[in-house]
Amino acid sequence: MIYKIKLRLYEILERTDIRDTASQIVDGLIWTLIALNLMAFTLETVDQIGNQYRKYFILFEEVSIAVFTVEYILRLWICTVNPDYNHSIRGRLRFMFTPLMLIDLIAIFPFYLPLLFPDLRFLRSLRLFRFFRILKLSRYSASLRTLGRVIRSKKEELIITFFVLFILLFCASSLIYFAEHEAQAEAFPNIPMSMWWGVITLTTVGYGDVYPVTLIGKLVGAMLAVLGIGLFALPAGILASGFSEELQVRHPLKRKRTSKFCPHCGKPIH
Amino acid sequence: MIYKIKLRLYEILERTDIRDTASQIVDGLIWTLIALNLMAFTLETVDQIGNQYRKYFILFEEVSIAVFTVEYILRLWICTVNPDYNHSIRGRLRFMFTPLMLIDLIAIFPFYLPLLFPDLRFLRSLRLFRFFRILKLSRYSASLRTLGRVIRSKKEELIITFFVLFILLFCASSLIYFAEHEAQAEAFPNIPMSMWWGVITLTTVGYGDVYPVTLIGKLVGAMLAVLGIGLFALPAGILASGFSEELQVRHPLKRKRTSKFCPHCGKPIH
Amino acid sequence: MIYKIKLRLYEILERTDIRDTASQIVDGLIWTLIALNLMAFTLETVDQIGNQYRKYFILFEEVSIAVFTVEYILRLWICTVNPDYNHSIRGRLRFMFTPLMLIDLIAIFPFYLPLLFPDLRFLRSLRLFRFFRILKLSRYSASLRTLGRVIRSKKEELIITFFVLFILLFCASSLIYFAEHEAQAEAFPNIPMSMWWGVITLTTVGYGDVYPVTLIGKLVGAMLAVLGIGLFALPAGILASGFSEELQVRHPLKRKRTSKFCPHCGKPIH
Amino acid sequence: MIYKIKLRLYEILERTDIRDTASQIVDGLIWTLIALNLMAFTLETVDQIGNQYRKYFILFEEVSIAVFTVEYILRLWICTVNPDYNHSIRGRLRFMFTPLMLIDLIAIFPFYLPLLFPDLRFLRSLRLFRFFRILKLSRYSASLRTLGRVIRSKKEELIITFFVLFILLFCASSLIYFAEHEAQAEAFPNIPMSMWWGVITLTTVGYGDVYPVTLIGKLVGAMLAVLGIGLFALPAGILASGFSEELQVRHPLKRKRTSKFCPHCGKPIH
Repeated sequence: MIYKIKLRLYEILERTDIRDTASQIVDGLIWTLIALNLMAFTLETVDQIGNQYRKYFILFEEVSIAVFTVEYILRLWICTVNPDYNHSIRGRLRFMFTPLMLIDLIAIFPFYLPLLFPDLRFLRSLRLFRFFRILKLSRYSASLRTLGRVIRSKKEELIITFFVLFILLFCASSLIYFAEHEAQAEAFPNIPMSMWWGVITLTTVGYGDVYPVTLIGKLVGAMLAVLGIGLFALPAGILASGFSEELQVRHPLKRKRTSKFCPHCGKPIH
Repeated sequence: MIYKIKLRLYEILERTDIRDTASQIVDGLIWTLIALNLMAFTLETVDQIGNQYRKYFILFEEVSIAVFTVEYILRLWICTVNPDYNHSIRGRLRFMFTPLMLIDLIAIFPFYLPLLFPDLRFLRSLRLFRFFRILKLSRYSASLRTLGRVIRSKKEELIITFFVLFILLFCASSLIYFAEHEAQAEAFPNIPMSMWWGVITLTTVGYGDVYPVTLIGKLVGAMLAVLGIGLFALPAGILASGFSEELQVRHPLKRKRTSKFCPHCGKPIH
Repeated sequence: MIYKIKLRLYEILERTDIRDTASQIVDGLIWTLIALNLMAFTLETVDQIGNQYRKYFILFEEVSIAVFTVEYILRLWICTVNPDYNHSIRGRLRFMFTPLMLIDLIAIFPFYLPLLFPDLRFLRSLRLFRFFRILKLSRYSASLRTLGRVIRSKKEELIITFFVLFILLFCASSLIYFAEHEAQAEAFPNIPMSMWWGVITLTTVGYGDVYPVTLIGKLVGAMLAVLGIGLFALPAGILASGFSEELQVRHPLKRKRTSKFCPHCGKPIH
Repeated sequence: MIYKIKLRLYEILERTDIRDTASQIVDGLIWTLIALNLMAFTLETVDQIGNQYRKYFILFEEVSIAVFTVEYILRLWICTVNPDYNHSIRGRLRFMFTPLMLIDLIAIFPFYLPLLFPDLRFLRSLRLFRFFRILKLSRYSASLRTLGRVIRSKKEELIITFFVLFILLFCASSLIYFAEHEAQAEAFPNIPMSMWWGVITLTTVGYGDVYPVTLIGKLVGAMLAVLGIGLFALPAGILASGFSEELQVRHPLKRKRTSKFCPHCGKPIH
């Protein structure tokens, strides 16, 4: 009997079967609660709102913690249904250290810390941990999972590109440092600080807080801006092609449209 | 007899047959009138022009409203030719609530409001509604229809990307808020306002009105700028590929150039 | 005899046969003279250089005009070799009005104007016309011809995109005008001037001379920046694909690498 | 006996066989030493760190020079194993002038100069030469070699694009100079200096240190910003496609996934 409840809960919480309405509703509710948490986290920093509705924010926080704690305990209780973690203690301990469960723990753990160590100043910085609840979305958001898969499939290209970008950034920052340090010791005090200029220029953000003023500095800056565009736009191109490949794999129907059959003899081509 | 007039008007107003010169001329005239309306709307805000030629602007506005009203009434009168809306009252009512007819109504309706409610202050903000006449272009502009189709065909990819972008923006704004709030309480007063920095940086616009000044803020900013480029350029890539797919479908001749021949029977495919 | 000279000159000046060394040398010399002209045009604006070496610049200008005039007259003289323009007067007149000959005329004509109308103040602005000598490059630069062909082949896509971009720019500028005009009447005095903000934001240049300060203005600006990136990067994507198509057509060898033959049975695939 | 040592050293230093652990370790150590050199070069410019740990930096520099010198001498000693350079003097001299050996020489040579010419002021600027040690990475970094191959394979496209970009930059700078010189003689003193504005605008960096203020200047700037995006993003697109082609060639396994089968005989091709 208990096993049956566990199995049903396991289906609801851990599986994502589109035809299982109960599972869909629970997923939707938790998704909404996470979204509301992030919204509360954001709005609380607005002074007028944060001060006026403080008690509602605290109440909402307590309800959220309660729900997330129940969710966490249920997951831990039912994980033994999964053959991989079916030992009641060792299986559960190993399950606790899976990435998704650690994320769930980080989302609630800081709330219980002050109960153990009632140090008020410590408490404040703990509120920052609520930010990490955004990681809980990774369980419920197909978009983030897609992005993760794309990044994994293009890992090698991205590593090469980022290495080249770093070399370019190093060269850019060293050259501008030697060109501009004399003229603007404040804006380019040393090479590590010149890298701020390097990143902001090579990404074409260009705030305008630091820019070269000497002739040689402008020459270096202009050349690097032109080179930088070519290279700093590479990750975007790599990710874009990864995305389109990923989405084609996921949609057999879409794929069908691009794999054709000869209309005369019916054999597949391409 | 009346039915014949209706049918001819229906052909002229609702169909876009390239060989029907009358239809082409009427379409061109309405298209030009919309363009002139938008130009008048723009130029009226220039003080010198707006004040000097006020009476001409008002005259032009009245003529435009007259034409658009006649167009609207004609469309409503003849819509019964279409079998979908052939009931004289119920058909016409349903036709009135089609998107294109609502757009046409918004283009003229505000002009008639002051006749019903002669409140002068209310009138002023009504002039803003003339801006929505730009929507009337959607009926006459093939470009906008093409864009609409492209966006529809890439809906899923775009939703995924925009969701990921929003998550990235949320993380960027939260991190920069915690890094910079102490040092620049005015530029980064709370997370929602930090999102302004986030958007302007991640899109690489980089006005320079707000930028990080602390070491940790610059580190966060630099990392996000690099990451952001990769992700914020994704919608462009998705739309670009959507566009080229769309244009290939529309032009059978262009397709022919890339068309292949079946390797089994030698006949052309695609 | 004269016809033979004409024919030889025609081969040298008008044809681009890689094996004809005389033709190659003449082309190279004129190309170099144009490049030197543009360099002189640029350096003359630098006060120190322009004043110190004025007489050399004037001398160089006179030599250039002489060479370009001789080139122009020769072209006009020999054009009758071409069957399309073989009438000595009517043919030459028609030839004078071909685009390339008009460009050649613009390059020398302004120099002779003061001889006809010796008005000193008029003379000054004529120096600006020397800028148009850059157009002469179009005859000698394969790169510019390639770009021209790419733009022509993607004409339709580019027109659609630029029309959509213009609509977006119009909407962006109107919305920001209504949002910011009250708060910053100087930066956003009317819609046409707000378009400056629109272009600089949507192209992600972001100088920072004008930017929204109100909450609603920032919302509008942020949304448009995100949308704008997607759309304003489209022409680049269209041109890039046009370029790669164009270069593949021009290089049969390169094409061969991508059109394959089955290594087993030797039949072409793809 | 000596030949055997030479051969083994040659295998370790010059070949990159993944199964040869000794070779892999030596490569890794030199790679690490180069990376540490670049880090030291960077950190030394930070005043607090540079002054406090000066003696450690000097010690590290001396150790690096010693290692690089030993590496250089060994390479020169063993190069005769290679049949291309097997003459003990002429072969070694020719080997000294290969690009990689010149890079290795530049990395150590400046350190020995003061021993020959003990001029203190000369010494200072020599420290700059340590920057060129980054070039030594080209021997050990597969990423940089990949980038090199990509650039070589797309040489023609890139030359065309950069030529067109230069023409566009020239036009942009000339036009803005004539539009803005009167109004802002300081920001746009002559055409060469206006090119700084041109590059920063066309690359969409947009610092905001120079921007047009006159109506005509803004029109020119807006048009060029729109055009520039299309063209300045081209090198990125060209490199991106070059990268993906290059990586497909290198990975036979990846290629297999996209490989096709001959429709005639059914055997795999590609």
